[in-house]
Amino acid sequence: MQYEMKWRVQYYETDRMGIVHHSNYIRYFETARTEFIRKEGLPYETIEEMGVLIPVLAVSAEYKTPAVYDEILSISCRFTKLGYASFELEYEVRNDETGELHVRGWSKQAFTDETLKPVAIRKAAPVVHEVFSRLYKESQEKAGKQQSDE
Amino acid sequence: MQYEMKWRVQYYETDRMGIVHHSNYIRYFETARTEFIRKEGLPYETIEEMGVLIPVLAVSAEYKTPAVYDEILSISCRFTKLGYASFELEYEVRNDETGELHVRGWSKQAFTDETLKPVAIRKAAPVVHEVFSRLYKESQEKAGKQQSDE
Amino acid sequence: MQYEMKWRVQYYETDRMGIVHHSNYIRYFETARTEFIRKEGLPYETIEEMGVLIPVLAVSAEYKTPAVYDEILSISCRFTKLGYASFELEYEVRNDETGELHVRGWSKQAFTDETLKPVAIRKAAPVVHEVFSRLYKESQEKAGKQQSDE
Amino acid sequence: MQYEMKWRVQYYETDRMGIVHHSNYIRYFETARTEFIRKEGLPYETIEEMGVLIPVLAVSAEYKTPAVYDEILSISCRFTKLGYASFELEYEVRNDETGELHVRGWSKQAFTDETLKPVAIRKAAPVVHEVFSRLYKESQEKAGKQQSDE
Repeated sequence: MQYEMKWRVQYYETDRMGIVHHSNYIRYFETARTEFIRKEGLPYETIEEMGVLIPVLAVSAEYKTPAVYDEILSISCRFTKLGYASFELEYEVRNDETGELHVRGWSKQAFTDETLKPVAIRKAAPVVHEVFSRLYKESQEKAGKQQSDE
Repeated sequence: MQYEMKWRVQYYETDRMGIVHHSNYIRYFETARTEFIRKEGLPYETIEEMGVLIPVLAVSAEYKTPAVYDEILSISCRFTKLGYASFELEYEVRNDETGELHVRGWSKQAFTDETLKPVAIRKAAPVVHEVFSRLYKESQEKAGKQQSDE
Repeated sequence: MQYEMKWRVQYYETDRMGIVHHSNYIRYFETARTEFIRKEGLPYETIEEMGVLIPVLAVSAEYKTPAVYDEILSISCRFTKLGYASFELEYEVRNDETGELHVRGWSKQAFTDETLKPVAIRKAAPVVHEVFSRLYKESQEKAGKQQSDE
Repeated sequence: MQYEMKWRVQYYETDRMGIVHHSNYIRYFETARTEFIRKEGLPYETIEEMGVLIPVLAVSAEYKTPAVYDEILSISCRFTKLGYASFELEYEVRNDETGELHVRGWSKQAFTDETLKPVAIRKAAPVVHEVFSRLYKESQEKAGKQQSDE
């Protein structure tokens, strides 16, 4: 994947099955997404200051194996689509040590103004468009390379 | 849908966009699912006492319009599939007053033993199988009727 | 107490000890506080529309016995102080059926403007002051009566 | 303080006031507490495997200034008491860059067996007692030194 971060499972993230409550992975996706973009010089904070909000349009997750308390997770993501007013990412949550896959996910986000109406990001915030385009292209190149390597 | 419940949006469920954080709808789905089954005489508590756990295998959500603080939501769900060791439901979250659709969702759950290994529910807990079969059948009949009514 | 509401413990509110995570009681206090004031005709929503925010200044909780999944809680509260720019409440969380005490709590809130600077509520929003004064007085009378009854 | 860790404020931790929801600081305290003890070679995980649980008995927090989205927090804590079957800590949450104090807190925890009955930690898990005693002593020495330095 394009970006990877670590996350220690917190006590309050577990439920009485003794595993991470499934809703928390949706939060992990968000954390990875925002950290990824921050690393590229674009904290959400900054984007929101430009008058652009990024609400989530859709999300999905497949739970393969449960993560447990105290485990260190590797949460990774990559761009899979960039539209006029939206973009999509894929995610993987793994045990950081063994690489065991816990959850696979996907999300689609909109670019909107402060009233949550969609905006063409190229016009609304050219800098954001530039960075996202580069990230999307890099993701495509990497995927292409991986395919031709096989 | 087959089952409907109300939920008042809590302050801690909102985020700095002023809307319900998208991860919370995944929790609403769970609440509706458990309340639905409880109403049929099968609290999760009771099912877990029979040695059957119900971890989530997959979930998806489409966010149409944002719900806001203090709004009363109508969260509804219906059975869409019942397998040997899993079942699926669909969800809708609407504004209770206007009926405006906020979120559409879907989830798939497994029946497992206490070590989270899948079990054939018909054998593991016949009562649970019976209730779920009836609910699934009712859902199908309703859907069939709605189609023939159109 | 002056106000009481019910709450069903949600699965996502439990942790791997099998009990309600202690942080959630702080959220229950908020829910009771807002429902109490709403019942008196003053949803937080309305107060915030008057330009008054109500951030929490301090909170405390004593955990006596754990609440568990699926339990129905009785969350009650009463006014214990009303100042120029702040107010305080006490809380009790009990098992709704047996009355067993789970948690006792207290919180202090400020009245502020939208920049989170304290405001004298009597001037900033006379209606709010009126309602809160009445609630505070009722709480005192009730407490006095209880004492003289003993 | 004795121990300090960093935490980046997550989007889902903010509320519609645009600040960290007050309940989340109670979770920060827990995170600091567990990280502190882990650093000393005693992950909660390990303690729980010895049959000792550490439920919270009481907690309090004073909110001085609000933390906002994306901010890096410094969460610090120190031991203030060690009893037969309980211990106490103090916390501070600050802006990591400016040192501005956001929240001051305190919590008391019990040592219990798996049925949540109190246990004398010296007997129940001597290793835990040893580590906690050392940490408590270090905290006292540091506090004494700070006083005599003044």
